[in-house]
Amino acid sequence: MSIQAGIVGAAGFAGIEAARFVIGHPEFELVAATSNELAGKRLADLYPGFEGVTDLAFSSHDDAPLKQCDVVFLAVPHTAAIAQAPALVEAGVAVIDLSADFRLKDPAVYEQWYQVKHTATDLLAEAAFGLPELFRADLEALAAKRAAGKGVLVGCAGCYPTATSLAAAPFIRAGLAGAGPIVADAVSGVSGAGKKATERTHFCFANENVEAYGVANHRHTPEIEQILGIEGRLVFTPHLAPLDRGLLSTVTIPMGEAPITQGQLDELYADFYKDAPLVSVLTGGKQPKTSSVAGTCRAHVAAVLNEHANVIVATGAIDNVGKGAAGQAVQCANIVFGLPETAGLDLIAIPA
Amino acid sequence: MSIQAGIVGAAGFAGIEAARFVIGHPEFELVAATSNELAGKRLADLYPGFEGVTDLAFSSHDDAPLKQCDVVFLAVPHTAAIAQAPALVEAGVAVIDLSADFRLKDPAVYEQWYQVKHTATDLLAEAAFGLPELFRADLEALAAKRAAGKGVLVGCAGCYPTATSLAAAPFIRAGLAGAGPIVADAVSGVSGAGKKATERTHFCFANENVEAYGVANHRHTPEIEQILGIEGRLVFTPHLAPLDRGLLSTVTIPMGEAPITQGQLDELYADFYKDAPLVSVLTGGKQPKTSSVAGTCRAHVAAVLNEHANVIVATGAIDNVGKGAAGQAVQCANIVFGLPETAGLDLIAIPA
Amino acid sequence: MSIQAGIVGAAGFAGIEAARFVIGHPEFELVAATSNELAGKRLADLYPGFEGVTDLAFSSHDDAPLKQCDVVFLAVPHTAAIAQAPALVEAGVAVIDLSADFRLKDPAVYEQWYQVKHTATDLLAEAAFGLPELFRADLEALAAKRAAGKGVLVGCAGCYPTATSLAAAPFIRAGLAGAGPIVADAVSGVSGAGKKATERTHFCFANENVEAYGVANHRHTPEIEQILGIEGRLVFTPHLAPLDRGLLSTVTIPMGEAPITQGQLDELYADFYKDAPLVSVLTGGKQPKTSSVAGTCRAHVAAVLNEHANVIVATGAIDNVGKGAAGQAVQCANIVFGLPETAGLDLIAIPA
Amino acid sequence: MSIQAGIVGAAGFAGIEAARFVIGHPEFELVAATSNELAGKRLADLYPGFEGVTDLAFSSHDDAPLKQCDVVFLAVPHTAAIAQAPALVEAGVAVIDLSADFRLKDPAVYEQWYQVKHTATDLLAEAAFGLPELFRADLEALAAKRAAGKGVLVGCAGCYPTATSLAAAPFIRAGLAGAGPIVADAVSGVSGAGKKATERTHFCFANENVEAYGVANHRHTPEIEQILGIEGRLVFTPHLAPLDRGLLSTVTIPMGEAPITQGQLDELYADFYKDAPLVSVLTGGKQPKTSSVAGTCRAHVAAVLNEHANVIVATGAIDNVGKGAAGQAVQCANIVFGLPETAGLDLIAIPA
Repeated sequence: MSIQAGIVGAAGFAGIEAARFVIGHPEFELVAATSNELAGKRLADLYPGFEGVTDLAFSSHDDAPLKQCDVVFLAVPHTAAIAQAPALVEAGVAVIDLSADFRLKDPAVYEQWYQVKHTATDLLAEAAFGLPELFRADLEALAAKRAAGKGVLVGCAGCYPTATSLAAAPFIRAGLAGAGPIVADAVSGVSGAGKKATERTHFCFANENVEAYGVANHRHTPEIEQILGIEGRLVFTPHLAPLDRGLLSTVTIPMGEAPITQGQLDELYADFYKDAPLVSVLTGGKQPKTSSVAGTCRAHVAAVLNEHANVIVATGAIDNVGKGAAGQAVQCANIVFGLPETAGLDLIAIPA
Repeated sequence: MSIQAGIVGAAGFAGIEAARFVIGHPEFELVAATSNELAGKRLADLYPGFEGVTDLAFSSHDDAPLKQCDVVFLAVPHTAAIAQAPALVEAGVAVIDLSADFRLKDPAVYEQWYQVKHTATDLLAEAAFGLPELFRADLEALAAKRAAGKGVLVGCAGCYPTATSLAAAPFIRAGLAGAGPIVADAVSGVSGAGKKATERTHFCFANENVEAYGVANHRHTPEIEQILGIEGRLVFTPHLAPLDRGLLSTVTIPMGEAPITQGQLDELYADFYKDAPLVSVLTGGKQPKTSSVAGTCRAHVAAVLNEHANVIVATGAIDNVGKGAAGQAVQCANIVFGLPETAGLDLIAIPA
Repeated sequence: MSIQAGIVGAAGFAGIEAARFVIGHPEFELVAATSNELAGKRLADLYPGFEGVTDLAFSSHDDAPLKQCDVVFLAVPHTAAIAQAPALVEAGVAVIDLSADFRLKDPAVYEQWYQVKHTATDLLAEAAFGLPELFRADLEALAAKRAAGKGVLVGCAGCYPTATSLAAAPFIRAGLAGAGPIVADAVSGVSGAGKKATERTHFCFANENVEAYGVANHRHTPEIEQILGIEGRLVFTPHLAPLDRGLLSTVTIPMGEAPITQGQLDELYADFYKDAPLVSVLTGGKQPKTSSVAGTCRAHVAAVLNEHANVIVATGAIDNVGKGAAGQAVQCANIVFGLPETAGLDLIAIPA
Repeated sequence: MSIQAGIVGAAGFAGIEAARFVIGHPEFELVAATSNELAGKRLADLYPGFEGVTDLAFSSHDDAPLKQCDVVFLAVPHTAAIAQAPALVEAGVAVIDLSADFRLKDPAVYEQWYQVKHTATDLLAEAAFGLPELFRADLEALAAKRAAGKGVLVGCAGCYPTATSLAAAPFIRAGLAGAGPIVADAVSGVSGAGKKATERTHFCFANENVEAYGVANHRHTPEIEQILGIEGRLVFTPHLAPLDRGLLSTVTIPMGEAPITQGQLDELYADFYKDAPLVSVLTGGKQPKTSSVAGTCRAHVAAVLNEHANVIVATGAIDNVGKGAAGQAVQCANIVFGLPETAGLDLIAIPA
């Protein structure tokens, strides 16, 4: 019997991508996709790629049978998840939150960066952090809880934190990093700016342009620092480039005292991800390309020793909406439901 | 037990896309992917999207166990299929040819447009034309033959002929077209120009540019005329636009004597494609978008009555490498092997 | 002494492009650029390419000293020009209207296609049609009037009409076209959809997509028919492709009785444009590329004989905002002021 | 009387862009454009944007009257400039070299990074470094020499060094930087990879992709270190993004002991560039966009204080082929010939 899935905020880019993954999933069945604004319209009316695939229509949030779902994906703005998650968890649903509401473990940090009080701190304490390659045990612990019939909550990692942390974690967790700033310069496709039509997302302004934004104050900064345990040391600068999908994070990390060779670095990374079916480590001078993971939940990482300046340069490529949001949410749900981690996520990027 | 599949010319865009579809197919197993130039390299070395998916390496044409395959996809230039298909068919293989060699039923027409003699005219006479929505019976006839243990051959339709014919066929086959030229102006993404690095495919020349090419002499002209039975009446002008994947054909057809309403036109199209799971008819002012079918084997079509000039304007969108080549090849193979037509082809385009 | 120029609606794509051309013009001086919405902001605040170039700020329409200008460019929506032009012409200003208000000579046709009554029909009768290569004499007549101190009005051609007519006019004006529909399939960059942020102009919807729009009912249809004298015969289908700037129109015209060779066709076109410094005729199989004219007021055209279907295929490439709007407006102004036609318009497209 | 200009290697992207700037220059006259491969073809045959602009044809290097030119731009690969510059300087020509041959002041560093011996070290010692905003005095010294009838040589800065150094120099030259690595992550458009058709420059591989390259070993590393005086401290990682033109460098620099406010930082930058007409400093949260400088010789820079990690993040946007190559070469030539620095360089980027 299939696992009944609902998506809240299904009209946005992360929500509709979740719909794509859920529809293609061997065990999940999409039973509700909410959008207050578009209630009554078919998914295919807004996203014609669903023509011939499904006639499901968006429902309003209040009309959707969310509490009857086995799993609900919240693809909503921050604060909306705080408002909606508690009742769903209470009702026994496995809630996979794609927003920022349940990522930062310290409510004070949340309040500092998001300028709003966190009103579901109990649930925050229970939530697992949704980045399976780095916090698998926490997700597996939820699986046990859910198997016992309890509602559970996953706060999925953001897109920049996912790419940045996957690139940097093997080196940093091995204790090899030296002191000083860690610099993550990341480039995202325009889908990262969301579905809302704005000057920023207008084709003629976004096309043929690269620019930095959120310099020195992007909200993913504390999330990355929390994941990597590098509080106060991260310089995170996101950039926008003219592509639909894709996110590359280039992380420069000072070397510590222990010398390391490129071969040892490659080995360290290969070993770190040996049980991660969705992460590939590139070596021999190959660099991650965002096009190789677009439309998928895969990640490519590489780490290069830069002896000239005594740092390593670690790079990570993901699809910001795939592994960076909806794909990762499905991956987390798979673990919570005891399914193979890659169920419904074996898509291959379009070759060229 | 899975159906063993080989791909000849697997390094090109159509070949590697066939590999993607075959790997994701529930019944096919990819056992050989040939490229003389790249023999020994892994698919993932050239197309890193295959990292973590398969470690299969390209083999040289001569080394590949093609005759032991159940199905072989020929993703080769014209004349190469004439050279290779006969022996494979003779060996009992189901050969799905993506080249132009077995499309034109009249060898004289082939020789006129391709400037080379056709040396496998017996096989040409036996080949089915691979455009299932318009020539399904021919493909089903091959299924019977193959079930009896015989080798068979499908000559798949080209990309422009597929989009153009799917758009125009319902109207023309209904006998509604009047006299005079039928104009197909089509726009293709750059993948249609192939994998070879040339000035035409250089990013800086292709990007931010639209241009016509092959004006008045493109080889898909006789193929479209054959499919639609409009010999000597087609004006076909292909264009290149700056996108990876996608092909839109806009076909202007003179109205005949019989009057028709927009509603009747919509009904005609809906009825024509009611048993075609991969074709969606758009109505109510909606127009096909190439982005809605990119990466898939789907097609979207619409037909609009233009009373001002007494014509209909029919449009068809496909992915030139998907429904226009590799996807259609797999669709044909599915029919030949008695599988559901959509097996392995249920991918949904990336929503945005 | 410089010619004082004002731009109404300067914040939109055509308006700001007019500002770029006027600032770079050897004889014009930009003294007013209006935008009610952005009044007080510098041009450079919205379009940072003007940083270091000008500190001019947008003014509100009412505050701008438009009647003191020698020339005013109206880059406004239709109906707004009808509202604003009369008083300016009355005040002795040379008004160059980029909107659709003064293009269609028959007010009934305007009212049919724009669904609004034309309330300045006297001025409409006096207005010259702004497409210098095809209606030069009318513009030169205005020059005499203006030299006599009178206000004058030019209604500039639209973008699609410009490219389509430049491609088709030599053949049609020579009386060589046969009977039957004339098909213009045109492809425009996204700037043609305007500066407003909408779903259509969102990068993630426009990118990697080609689609037709306005099928059978686009308002440029009667304008093209008027220019070419082909009333009731034009099938015009515009398309959107993922580029910022550029418009290619492919026009298929039935051959008449008189036979013609490709050589004669080339000669006809070369002769037709021999005194048009901004139009280049391509021959020998070369096709117009939009990239070759982007950012300029130039046009490239070619005409190819298609004996197979007894038609000619004429193509024309322009920058939709350049020769298709702001550049053409400046070109018209040059003629009206007795300046060299190319003054300020000698820009060369970025090579690649 | 005009200044006679020649371009060696005029068919490549930097060379043809130099042709565009020279043709639009009020004082220069383009008398020779060499390309051994394309000798005899018109510039407009290869780059149709020159149709209607010039009928000049490429000449072979040996046939071009280069020694009779007043100024010769060398847009050639490294080592070719070493071979050609000496005889031209000897002949009294002002040579503006766009290659890497005369950038690195220490021949040993050149030999280490380019793996070839420098055979014109005397000339290297005399050459001025072509980055006017940072080394204006050296260029002005050449002006005196040239006025005295002597040949002179400028080795123009590379594209990445230009953007990176313009962003970082005000802070570093003010002595405000602290110890530790300085990280420059830069993103370039595909034109930076040159005109050669390769897999890297193929539209279908470059489009919808971002990737790093030359990690830890890019040859611009020592050039940036030399300009900024930060030998051994630079971590330079270039990236490729899917746009034609544009280069953004994001430079993270550790703060030193001296505290600084954002206001002081803005003031420092404004003051540093107060006499640089082609550099604009953005403040108030505005960030440089590559689209704002595309097709021009302008640069936009900004510097942001990041107190969280005690660094500054300085960003610089240029057109890699404009200010990063051909435009800068013309700017240097202007200074050498005593012309206004911006002569021929007052182009404004296409607004959108």
